[in-house]
Amino acid sequence: MKGFSRRATVDEAISWIDQMTLPDVREELVALDHLAGRVLARDIISQVNVPGFDRAMMDGYAVRANDTAGASTYNPLPLEIVGEILPGQPFDGELQPGQAVRIMTGAPMPTGADAVLPVEKTESDNHRVLVMDSLPEQKHIGASGEDIRVGECVLAAGRRIRPQDIGVLSSIGLAQLPVFARPRTRIVITGNELLPSGTRPAGYRIADANGPMLAALVERDGGNVVNRELIPDTPEAILAAMQDDVDVVLVSGGSSVGIEDYAPQLLAQHGELAFHGIAMRPSSPSGMGTMGNRTVFLLPGNPVSCLCSYDFFAGRALRRLAGLPLAWPYRQQRLRLKRKIVSQVGRVDYARVRVADSQAEPIAVAGASRLSSTTRADGFVIIPTDSEGYPPQTEVDVYLYDNT
Amino acid sequence: MKGFSRRATVDEAISWIDQMTLPDVREELVALDHLAGRVLARDIISQVNVPGFDRAMMDGYAVRANDTAGASTYNPLPLEIVGEILPGQPFDGELQPGQAVRIMTGAPMPTGADAVLPVEKTESDNHRVLVMDSLPEQKHIGASGEDIRVGECVLAAGRRIRPQDIGVLSSIGLAQLPVFARPRTRIVITGNELLPSGTRPAGYRIADANGPMLAALVERDGGNVVNRELIPDTPEAILAAMQDDVDVVLVSGGSSVGIEDYAPQLLAQHGELAFHGIAMRPSSPSGMGTMGNRTVFLLPGNPVSCLCSYDFFAGRALRRLAGLPLAWPYRQQRLRLKRKIVSQVGRVDYARVRVADSQAEPIAVAGASRLSSTTRADGFVIIPTDSEGYPPQTEVDVYLYDNT
Repeated sequence: MKGFSRRATVDEAISWIDQMTLPDVREELVALDHLAGRVLARDIISQVNVPGFDRAMMDGYAVRANDTAGASTYNPLPLEIVGEILPGQPFDGELQPGQAVRIMTGAPMPTGADAVLPVEKTESDNHRVLVMDSLPEQKHIGASGEDIRVGECVLAAGRRIRPQDIGVLSSIGLAQLPVFARPRTRIVITGNELLPSGTRPAGYRIADANGPMLAALVERDGGNVVNRELIPDTPEAILAAMQDDVDVVLVSGGSSVGIEDYAPQLLAQHGELAFHGIAMRPSSPSGMGTMGNRTVFLLPGNPVSCLCSYDFFAGRALRRLAGLPLAWPYRQQRLRLKRKIVSQVGRVDYARVRVADSQAEPIAVAGASRLSSTTRADGFVIIPTDSEGYPPQTEVDVYLYDNT
Repeated sequence: MKGFSRRATVDEAISWIDQMTLPDVREELVALDHLAGRVLARDIISQVNVPGFDRAMMDGYAVRANDTAGASTYNPLPLEIVGEILPGQPFDGELQPGQAVRIMTGAPMPTGADAVLPVEKTESDNHRVLVMDSLPEQKHIGASGEDIRVGECVLAAGRRIRPQDIGVLSSIGLAQLPVFARPRTRIVITGNELLPSGTRPAGYRIADANGPMLAALVERDGGNVVNRELIPDTPEAILAAMQDDVDVVLVSGGSSVGIEDYAPQLLAQHGELAFHGIAMRPSSPSGMGTMGNRTVFLLPGNPVSCLCSYDFFAGRALRRLAGLPLAWPYRQQRLRLKRKIVSQVGRVDYARVRVADSQAEPIAVAGASRLSSTTRADGFVIIPTDSEGYPPQTEVDVYLYDNT
């Protein structure tokens, strides 16, 4: 057993992720109802005008603007009511001078009419309406194409779909949209001491915490967990898992340099082990590489290290594959430190902090095994590789775990 | 046809929502794998210690600290290796003075041992290990309960579940957790001119934009859309929809004071119409009330008004029922206005803005029918009821549509 011969820097590992070859085809068609949060893979060009016809923007009367010239409360002008138009219904024939048609908001303007007289500005009986105000042409008309025009790009490739985007896409008649496929991800949990997640710990065995945590993280970052299981700590089982037909493999546990840490050796033998050992704390025993078309991340079994390593590396890779922004999906807040944080030059530190009274208080923790340190914390601070830490009252960027 | 006799203020409507009677029972058990983003309905108390036993925190040798007293590289002390402990496996028997047991990180400490000698600080053959350093008691041991203790509240009621929370809940052996039930929501789309969402508009009919937009908004705010359909613009169909067995009914369209606007009248006759007409723009023809145990929101059919009304009122009610924070799920940013925004005293305005060069530029729009104004916008600014608007360069709070 030996230590890491050389630890890569966090920046080196991140550069590798940002330069990974992306698959050629990675889009799929998704129905409107499942589109929220997905990322468009292509520009969306409208094939239709919205609205597709001139329409009334007020309840009132479709008229010829000319017929209203000179009208006022002192000089009401009568028009003959020749019909009624509801939304969705056309008006047969053409409006003649001296005529008006009762019209509802959203209904199509009849041929010949070029303004809408709001109902509040009229008096009427069943046959006649008195115009009390003159109108310019096009008044209270929504013109065809005023919302969206044929040929217009309504949403560009790379757009993360918002609820109102779905409304707009629906209004141009699209039922399915091309979005980036969610990277197929396999989560491999090793550790013979582990019981399946949600099992009450018994004897000297503990319940798997990393599996369900990683699954939630992968979903957050746009991935699709196609397989997640505990596997035996054997080279055969680990290699088979790393050769699964997926885009990304996350291996939790056995990522260090011990004799039973098979995953790094297997990745080096059967694929490419790009990095093994990163100058950071926690998560130093992290690794990554490729096997065939798969990107493989080796995550430490200690839960805090696993979370931290995922967030620095695997999550970024997933977001890149999913077309999402590369930056952490954590809100940032600039706060003063309540107590000092000590680090070492030459490594990146991930320090959990609690936020109270607009201050960030580092959580005292020993080691990377206490996952509860990340649930007691409100967020974390990154201490860069060239820093020895920060004295109290330093202003730091806090990444908040809760993004709402 | 008449206008609203009196418009309620936005604040009155929000107070009504914040004081709605909540259902007595509104929790359900949800499995770990579906817990992300859900809200705990109860405090979660651990029934177990995590870890449940003292364990090694390093790869090395379990020893009696006493046996290492005086050891150094100049005075290496030999211990007899009497076995090996892997994670999840107990050690039979008790460690005697002069003995050491090979131990892996995470493995349970054998009886009699009280420190772990890191493998890097030793030399060994198959039978003996040479101790080169003295150790205090408990060195490199993770004590039982150091992460979580029996009886400890690990996560409190009201917590929105994060990925690492799922890990912690798994580690204490829980497979299902009590969370707030997602409010069952029915979305009712009225408008005889409408075609189903995603249908290409034809003739004088337009595709429903509000239905799929509202569905995505409801899901975002923790609701569960149990039914969403276009219904005929008849009092019978609208009343039946408002009497569905759900928690929240959203009715889009027919919410104003026209003769074909049945929903407000029906709500007044068969339930309680708490508000109808709100002093705001857009969305003035909004209403809300109750019918039996259901909360009913009447949303304008114009898409921008529908979005705005949903966000001000229905979304807040859903978040309250779902146990989520009441505040808008939009990130806020303080920016200067590039151009003025004009409003009127006496109403709240919802102004869409584009963000560029760290400035918020109001989007020129006429009316509330152009949904694309909300997809071209990056967010919105609220102009309160007592303001006539803002001159250029005013610092305003922008709510960003994209929360990532």
